[in-house]
Amino acid sequence: MGPGPINADPRVLRAMSAQLLGQYDPAMTSYMNETMELYRSVFRTTNEQTLLVDGTSRAGIEAALVSLIEPGDRVLVPIFGRFGHLLREIAERCGAEVYVIEVAWGQVFSPEAIEAAIKRVQPKLLAVVHGDTSTTMAQPLDELGAICAAHGVLFYTDVTASLAGNAFEADAWGLDAVTAGLQKCLAGPSGSAPATFSAKAVEVITARKSIEAGIREAGDAVTAHPIRSNYFDLAMIFDYWGPKRLNHHTEATTMLFGARECARILVEEGMDQAIERHRLHGAAMLAGVQGLGLAVFGDVAHKMNNVVAVYIPDGVNGDAVRAELLTDFGIEIGTSFGPLHGKVWRIGTMGYNARKDTVLTTLAALEAVLRRAGASVTAGGGVTAAYDVYADEERAEHERAAAVRP
Amino acid sequence: MGPGPINADPRVLRAMSAQLLGQYDPAMTSYMNETMELYRSVFRTTNEQTLLVDGTSRAGIEAALVSLIEPGDRVLVPIFGRFGHLLREIAERCGAEVYVIEVAWGQVFSPEAIEAAIKRVQPKLLAVVHGDTSTTMAQPLDELGAICAAHGVLFYTDVTASLAGNAFEADAWGLDAVTAGLQKCLAGPSGSAPATFSAKAVEVITARKSIEAGIREAGDAVTAHPIRSNYFDLAMIFDYWGPKRLNHHTEATTMLFGARECARILVEEGMDQAIERHRLHGAAMLAGVQGLGLAVFGDVAHKMNNVVAVYIPDGVNGDAVRAELLTDFGIEIGTSFGPLHGKVWRIGTMGYNARKDTVLTTLAALEAVLRRAGASVTAGGGVTAAYDVYADEERAEHERAAAVRP
Repeated sequence: MGPGPINADPRVLRAMSAQLLGQYDPAMTSYMNETMELYRSVFRTTNEQTLLVDGTSRAGIEAALVSLIEPGDRVLVPIFGRFGHLLREIAERCGAEVYVIEVAWGQVFSPEAIEAAIKRVQPKLLAVVHGDTSTTMAQPLDELGAICAAHGVLFYTDVTASLAGNAFEADAWGLDAVTAGLQKCLAGPSGSAPATFSAKAVEVITARKSIEAGIREAGDAVTAHPIRSNYFDLAMIFDYWGPKRLNHHTEATTMLFGARECARILVEEGMDQAIERHRLHGAAMLAGVQGLGLAVFGDVAHKMNNVVAVYIPDGVNGDAVRAELLTDFGIEIGTSFGPLHGKVWRIGTMGYNARKDTVLTTLAALEAVLRRAGASVTAGGGVTAAYDVYADEERAEHERAAAVRP
Repeated sequence: MGPGPINADPRVLRAMSAQLLGQYDPAMTSYMNETMELYRSVFRTTNEQTLLVDGTSRAGIEAALVSLIEPGDRVLVPIFGRFGHLLREIAERCGAEVYVIEVAWGQVFSPEAIEAAIKRVQPKLLAVVHGDTSTTMAQPLDELGAICAAHGVLFYTDVTASLAGNAFEADAWGLDAVTAGLQKCLAGPSGSAPATFSAKAVEVITARKSIEAGIREAGDAVTAHPIRSNYFDLAMIFDYWGPKRLNHHTEATTMLFGARECARILVEEGMDQAIERHRLHGAAMLAGVQGLGLAVFGDVAHKMNNVVAVYIPDGVNGDAVRAELLTDFGIEIGTSFGPLHGKVWRIGTMGYNARKDTVLTTLAALEAVLRRAGASVTAGGGVTAAYDVYADEERAEHERAAAVRP
């Protein structure tokens, strides 16, 4: 029940125990095509270039940035947590001139603040995290696409922590590049990074295509600014996933089976239903920790559905409580980074773990462990408050059902 | 039965269906430590820095090269097949001044030729493929370490195609950096790159360590030549796998479970026994294709144990034969690249597929399909020749057993 990685859905684990297929076996390439189509639904996009980068979510970020950014390009990174620092760091390594704006951890940016910075910096690319687990905040993105389009700026976001647990619309929100991971609300393991790229992003990337020296022919264009990485060269990766089937890496077959199953589960459930499930169980966990008497960190109005940060009560050893939860109850909750280190725990309700039983069990166990640690907790307050959220929900559902009866 | 990826060992697939663990769960970090120790046995090294890069074998190559090479460094790449071109390509993207020497496909280099080039080029790094599946050749490496040491050159090799199927000794042969993959003789899926680095390589890499801007403190050294990639920054990855447990990527848990099981299987079997198994079944397949009357490509004395390239008989449509083998017999064999495209098939005997039943079945099926394609084949010649190799081996084993009896 940490901020991820979390337990995988057993269906995903079963899919990953399937025997391998050859790289160009028609069954394998059809699975690749299916996976592209499934992730179009997950990202809510019609982008042709919707595929997997073979590595962890950080690999997806680096593939997007190194393929879009040429050395010297200006990049604007609004930072509201640890993963904003990571975007800055990766963009710097790509040779970008990086400009940042920052808010205190626990806050997000207004669209006006981001537009003002865009006017000042005139970047080629806006790179912003959607949901930053380090602070639990979700940056509103729905107005940023129009702002980027008005100023001719490419718009990239990392949705590793937020996708499938919070509303996200790649096309409607005007995204040019989006990367994710499986290990949060997608209920899979780390190691594959679903990603999608708009036609505009594809144009920028393919203009930098370079053909390997070994197979370059006289007359082939040689780009002035080749992508600095071979492994993360999206121009080549597009051709690997596309009808050309250019031989690049050997697709990580088992991770593809896993990523495909993650998306199949979500598409079967329905993206709206999956997000609603995360909203419900996140609300129950939030009410529960508050019901125990714990204080919640940050601007709750902008909190992601799938994670909550709670202050460690005074006098309580945060690491000892976490160790006891893990050892005695088999429940993991998260520590935190940077300015929040030692101050808050982070508790997730995501993917396969966004369930009523996991929420109630975690709240009961947390109460027990906190009491043993000498903290003052409201007896039964966590579980009761969570039950109340579920009861309200059931009542509302009955009313909705009654309202649609003829 | 292609040149890889091949079928995974069912034990590996079962290991990959295990439920996930938290990133810093003591069970998880103990698995990471176990995996390091297991791969020391596989690579035959005492290198502390023996770990997994989270990506395909190509990710391992890029991590090694981008972490070792600073822009402007001279790198010597002896090219004897497609994957030599890949090393050149990746080294160029790292900003290296790359010098190449080449031999015709199907040949390997003498140590003298490589030493002469080292004297001429005076590179910082020699980067050479061990076994190149594109030609089936294995470049002898055993004398190159001493040559590199004498000239102060770092020595890197890619053993993706050869490891565990052919003799390899990281320490005894003087390697500074070695990267591999799971999808060949290790009997696992693509997606994790085991790698090992000598103390000398670690010194070069850690001298380039840069601390993320977000957590850099006054007084921290700032390197003049930071590693150009964050994801492949081995200095950070060493700290992630080491006692510091620096938070870098989220380890690809399922791939780690798979990589660990691949090494456990090999260590249980014994590395010498695993290599001998590949030698035996490779010899049976070689004799078998020759027994069918097919001609073998390249310098057979330097062929890898685990793959053979055979000329497509005149008048036979190579792709049609491959498709029939796959569709009607469920057996995949490989096509080929570059100068060999359309001329040879590549047939593997590696990992879980290095077995008597797979060799005999493939030869029987190949004979059937070739006959239907109108090729002239020796009836029963493939299976008989392979059986003869196994019979000779059994006789030799009996004699060895008899000789050690008191």
